[in-house]
Amino acid sequence: MSEMTTDILEQNLGKIVLVRLKGGKSLRGRLKGFDQHLNLVLEETDDTTNIESTRKLGLIIVRGDNVVLISPPPR
Amino acid sequence: MSEMTTDILEQNLGKIVLVRLKGGKSLRGRLKGFDQHLNLVLEETDDTTNIESTRKLGLIIVRGDNVVLISPPPR
Amino acid sequence: MSEMTTDILEQNLGKIVLVRLKGGKSLRGRLKGFDQHLNLVLEETDDTTNIESTRKLGLIIVRGDNVVLISPPPR
Amino acid sequence: MSEMTTDILEQNLGKIVLVRLKGGKSLRGRLKGFDQHLNLVLEETDDTTNIESTRKLGLIIVRGDNVVLISPPPR
Amino acid sequence: MSEMTTDILEQNLGKIVLVRLKGGKSLRGRLKGFDQHLNLVLEETDDTTNIESTRKLGLIIVRGDNVVLISPPPR
Amino acid sequence: MSEMTTDILEQNLGKIVLVRLKGGKSLRGRLKGFDQHLNLVLEETDDTTNIESTRKLGLIIVRGDNVVLISPPPR
Amino acid sequence: MSEMTTDILEQNLGKIVLVRLKGGKSLRGRLKGFDQHLNLVLEETDDTTNIESTRKLGLIIVRGDNVVLISPPPR
Repeated sequence: MSEMTTDILEQNLGKIVLVRLKGGKSLRGRLKGFDQHLNLVLEETDDTTNIESTRKLGLIIVRGDNVVLISPPPR
Repeated sequence: MSEMTTDILEQNLGKIVLVRLKGGKSLRGRLKGFDQHLNLVLEETDDTTNIESTRKLGLIIVRGDNVVLISPPPR
Repeated sequence: MSEMTTDILEQNLGKIVLVRLKGGKSLRGRLKGFDQHLNLVLEETDDTTNIESTRKLGLIIVRGDNVVLISPPPR
Repeated sequence: MSEMTTDILEQNLGKIVLVRLKGGKSLRGRLKGFDQHLNLVLEETDDTTNIESTRKLGLIIVRGDNVVLISPPPR
Repeated sequence: MSEMTTDILEQNLGKIVLVRLKGGKSLRGRLKGFDQHLNLVLEETDDTTNIESTRKLGLIIVRGDNVVLISPPPR
Repeated sequence: MSEMTTDILEQNLGKIVLVRLKGGKSLRGRLKGFDQHLNLVLEETDDTTNIESTRKLGLIIVRGDNVVLISPPPR
Repeated sequence: MSEMTTDILEQNLGKIVLVRLKGGKSLRGRLKGFDQHLNLVLEETDDTTNIESTRKLGLIIVRGDNVVLISPPPR
């Protein structure tokens, strides 16, 4: 993982991020932790795959190999 | 696996967790063990993929590469 | 593979286990052997994917990367 | 690969085995060789995916990562 | 990653690139960073999968194993 | 790759082989080279996926991880 | 990658090649570079998946793990 990726993720610790997963699932949660495989810890997570009926997931661990995109919030 | 992931999983040993697998399967069971690949041992597991007809699986070993999310219970 | 996984599999050698594979196949057979990749040797195996018409497979070797779940019998 | 897997495959060299591949293909052939990745050499192979119209493949090399199950003949 | 790939990506830092992902998603964004796994950092990113209704994603991290193609702008 | 696999491929250098790929594509070409990953070089290759309208591909390099089966011609 | 594969690719530097990708995409472009993972740099690339409406992609980087076949032009 490039230093820039690490920097961006570190700057966004404690902030809301959007995560797209393989298979089409979308998540929205507060970034609590990550590692070099892009394994993520999110809290206050919502499953936003279906924007008309989001589902609360709370604290979750995401296995990094499922991650397609991580999108920090606009600054 | 980050130290935070390990900490969260250790804090939830003996507690009910939700697990989403690749392919769409959902499990709900008591976390009995895990390793750094996210291989999991769950007991009292229900297959909750179809929420209208869950199925009892009891004690199971989950191969980690199938795991998408692990969600500890709300505290 | 965690020590717990190894212990559970060792305790179930010679017993009937259920195995779910990627792609949806389900097997039911007597656990005769395993290794750290979850490659399995099962005997008296039935393909129980279609519960209305199971098929006898007898002795089989399962390549571990296909395994989703292994479920020992209730104690 | 566990010693047991190697033993079973070695005991079946020269015998007819059934092989299920990812994607649903089924093969039936005489086991001529194998390695630790479950790469297989089969001869007199039939593609038995469609049991109503099997196709002769003769001598084949199967790349091991496609293998789901190997089933030796009943003894 | 070949030196040529690195060179092309370095020459395009700060420029708009098109990225095609596995599963059919297309992105258009300003290349801000990359590493040897083709993990990418893009800013001002639009999801251009559906050209009739693009979606703003802003700053994103793309996990490299999802990348099919990267296309720098015409010079 | 087992010595037997290497031997079979070496004995078939310069001969027509059939290759099945993941995703269902079938090729028929003269084996010109291979390596331990089953990367193949074929010449005079036809895409025989659709047996009613084969397509000429000529000289091709096949990335080994796509290979399911290699079938040398009957002797 | 075998020496033969490297030789073929080197002989075709600067020439038009056809590339088939996993998922069915076909590309046609001038080979400008490659590495041992079959990561490719192509220029003047057309997406020829739909032969009735090809699309210009220009200079592209192809991540090697998507490559199925590379076909140099007939000599």
